[in-house]
Amino acid sequence: MTDPLAQLARQVQVLQDLEAIKRLKYAYFRCIDTASFAELEGLLHPQLTTCYVGGSYRIEFDNRAAFLEAMANAFNAEVACRHQGHHPEIDVLSEREATGIWYLHDVFLNLRERIRTEGTALYRDRYVKQDGRWLIRHQSYERIYEIVEPIATPPNLTAHYLASHGRRLP
Amino acid sequence: MTDPLAQLARQVQVLQDLEAIKRLKYAYFRCIDTASFAELEGLLHPQLTTCYVGGSYRIEFDNRAAFLEAMANAFNAEVACRHQGHHPEIDVLSEREATGIWYLHDVFLNLRERIRTEGTALYRDRYVKQDGRWLIRHQSYERIYEIVEPIATPPNLTAHYLASHGRRLP
Amino acid sequence: MTDPLAQLARQVQVLQDLEAIKRLKYAYFRCIDTASFAELEGLLHPQLTTCYVGGSYRIEFDNRAAFLEAMANAFNAEVACRHQGHHPEIDVLSEREATGIWYLHDVFLNLRERIRTEGTALYRDRYVKQDGRWLIRHQSYERIYEIVEPIATPPNLTAHYLASHGRRLP
Repeated sequence: MTDPLAQLARQVQVLQDLEAIKRLKYAYFRCIDTASFAELEGLLHPQLTTCYVGGSYRIEFDNRAAFLEAMANAFNAEVACRHQGHHPEIDVLSEREATGIWYLHDVFLNLRERIRTEGTALYRDRYVKQDGRWLIRHQSYERIYEIVEPIATPPNLTAHYLASHGRRLP
Repeated sequence: MTDPLAQLARQVQVLQDLEAIKRLKYAYFRCIDTASFAELEGLLHPQLTTCYVGGSYRIEFDNRAAFLEAMANAFNAEVACRHQGHHPEIDVLSEREATGIWYLHDVFLNLRERIRTEGTALYRDRYVKQDGRWLIRHQSYERIYEIVEPIATPPNLTAHYLASHGRRLP
Repeated sequence: MTDPLAQLARQVQVLQDLEAIKRLKYAYFRCIDTASFAELEGLLHPQLTTCYVGGSYRIEFDNRAAFLEAMANAFNAEVACRHQGHHPEIDVLSEREATGIWYLHDVFLNLRERIRTEGTALYRDRYVKQDGRWLIRHQSYERIYEIVEPIATPPNLTAHYLASHGRRLP
């Protein structure tokens, strides 16, 4: 790699990888909050592992199918929520491996059980590139803070995408 | 484009375009929340079209002048608000055309009418490059959720930029 | 700089600098909200200057040590907070100097004094590159809005990182 053009090409590839990985995670958040699980599947490695540690839960999965089924139940028609990931700190380790830290802010209104959860967390992810596309291989987060409170009065929802796009609970 | 240097130059140009389009939208949000309409005008194409679909409204414009006038009325001295756009998914289609998806989170306190609106939405934008600068050509959004509630007690605003920089209502 | 390869290399360097400066600020926010002051120190220039103008305060420092000590007191074990910086508008001025605008959204729960502060602000930063690393040289912000209110009922914190990682107050 002493060829200057080849060196520069590698630097450009890393910048393109950073953009691709950011888009991957941005699409991830868009897909969960809109219950777009078919598109979400294409963002995840089949052997996806996850470990979310909240105040009152520890959610672990070791494959994509189980994760997707759990997400479809969680992001159901009686939920209004927002998951936004900020502050990407991505390290491209090689042509096929990368890690990422993200700073999540999420609000989750469980309208059936009348519980509101709001919090922040630091994601620590791993990504792999397969067939030219980056995929999420591992996701974990640890909470910085989390507040869980009852919803005393149902919010006046004037728009509610999941009500018509999320899974209906039995 | 089989010249390796020319190919690399095009890839770098796309990366620069992505940065420029992100900055364009970031400046857009800064300008509306600070009522900086002279600067805002320079970010928008004269034939700007917009279509915002909220819970109780559908806001459509087909030119920049009408849009700017409506914004100056909306972001007036009796409003405190926050519009932040996250998760850019930008596609550079050509040297002069691009599209973008953004995940908005906004809070709008109408202090005169004592109404608080908070919500999220997905923007779907189109951008064009003219005279070397990217401009917003089209903006639309669809809500993921929106909550509209009365402001029972006026908030204790210890700083309020729009009070001194926004248009005074009659 | 009429050599096309050298020109392209400079453009790539600027894109790398933009990424590095974004990461610097993202790490900054992660470090304050997790009271990671040893890591934070490495992000700041020894002659760091800061000027934060809020509704009821004006916080100025003219060196890193004083700033770090104040941060350790502010982000203590009786605080839960979130500081997220969005919308980077970075200008690389030279190989060693850059400026940046950021749109902050912060929530600060002072659990001892039972005060909740939420607001937004525009940062105007200066960065310098030393020994191959970008550092924060100057930070200032001006509020767009700020709301300060008493905490009537303590929040039900189900996770609280600073409680175990922040400085204990006497």
